[in-house]
Amino acid sequence: MATLYTAPTGNGRKPLILVRLLKEAPIKVHLFKWPTPEVKQEWYLKLNPNGLIPTFVDPSKEIELYESNNLLEYLAFTYDTERKFHYSLDESPQLHWQQNQWLFFQGTQYAAHTLAIAVIYTKKNPNDAFTREFTLKNFNSIFTTLETQLSKSESGWFIGDKFTIVDIAFLCDEHRRREVTRGTDWWIDVEAKYPRIEEWYQRALNFENVKQILEEPISS
Amino acid sequence: MATLYTAPTGNGRKPLILVRLLKEAPIKVHLFKWPTPEVKQEWYLKLNPNGLIPTFVDPSKEIELYESNNLLEYLAFTYDTERKFHYSLDESPQLHWQQNQWLFFQGTQYAAHTLAIAVIYTKKNPNDAFTREFTLKNFNSIFTTLETQLSKSESGWFIGDKFTIVDIAFLCDEHRRREVTRGTDWWIDVEAKYPRIEEWYQRALNFENVKQILEEPISS
Repeated sequence: MATLYTAPTGNGRKPLILVRLLKEAPIKVHLFKWPTPEVKQEWYLKLNPNGLIPTFVDPSKEIELYESNNLLEYLAFTYDTERKFHYSLDESPQLHWQQNQWLFFQGTQYAAHTLAIAVIYTKKNPNDAFTREFTLKNFNSIFTTLETQLSKSESGWFIGDKFTIVDIAFLCDEHRRREVTRGTDWWIDVEAKYPRIEEWYQRALNFENVKQILEEPISS
Repeated sequence: MATLYTAPTGNGRKPLILVRLLKEAPIKVHLFKWPTPEVKQEWYLKLNPNGLIPTFVDPSKEIELYESNNLLEYLAFTYDTERKFHYSLDESPQLHWQQNQWLFFQGTQYAAHTLAIAVIYTKKNPNDAFTREFTLKNFNSIFTTLETQLSKSESGWFIGDKFTIVDIAFLCDEHRRREVTRGTDWWIDVEAKYPRIEEWYQRALNFENVKQILEEPISS
């Protein structure tokens, strides 16, 4: 049977949310407790040689895939046949390629400069001024881009007029960034500095049962 | 007219190579001298609010896009009608989604742990043991994944039996990594440690006129 192997992390929750929203999709969810040594075991490394989550396999179609934003696209294109959560190429080439662009921007620029740095540096807690200034400058640049994009949006979502896989990608990592940095001196007052992002974040949290999915217990 | 704004950097060369290989594509190339203050000027920020390259615009189709790997996909799907350099969904779903997966892996894991760190750290030249060990451990993990993928390949290319946009994405950033780290103590002896990657790198450099495109002069 088609199976999603994942865990409640920033990247891991992305396909989890989409699968839960696509209530009828015949996909089994294997939710690891996190962290787990299982992802470095031989059976799992055969599916994902990096030992990372998430991974999606569908033996009936000879599909074995990873990379969270790639899974968002694959799952949407394959199972979201009513196009509730994505734009297809034949529906709108402009929105389809913007969707792809923002998924790359989320996985590269956003993740490199905000989530990854937040995770690494809150654990290492570096106190040199250069690192802090460099990090916060990049953070501000990325968040200004997102604030601008959301300011231009009439719907309040990243692209077009609906909640899509782009919103899912940003929401999961932004939620994770907040979980990791809350209470540390890397916490950013998004509400004061980036009001459109804060409004979008609350809107996305309250979309259908997204908040409940984000709070799913860590054990499977 | 459709125009590609780019420069001779790791990400900038990706769409440049594809456009040059697609000899008949009606695309004008605007090659910036690099670095240039022009990308932070108002006219360019309207096209790319982050002031980064590359950017692709096609007014006739209302297309304005960025993110280098997104451009590789857009340009291939739009102009590579003979499918010389990519796999389309109807040609092979498995290879199409692997292609997408490796483009995300290149833009996220590879870039975050090798190119970006190489660029940042060779300029900062940090000498603390933790940073160096952490960086080289991540580098080794990523390169082992690539070595494994290439060891399984019968064609010598990353996916399927042809040189694709996945090879272009890795080649450009790997070429840039070597340009930036050569002669520094961040140089890695890829030939000795990762022979399949070295063979692939030389094979890709010698594909059609790729080497010549990589060496295009910096002024336009």
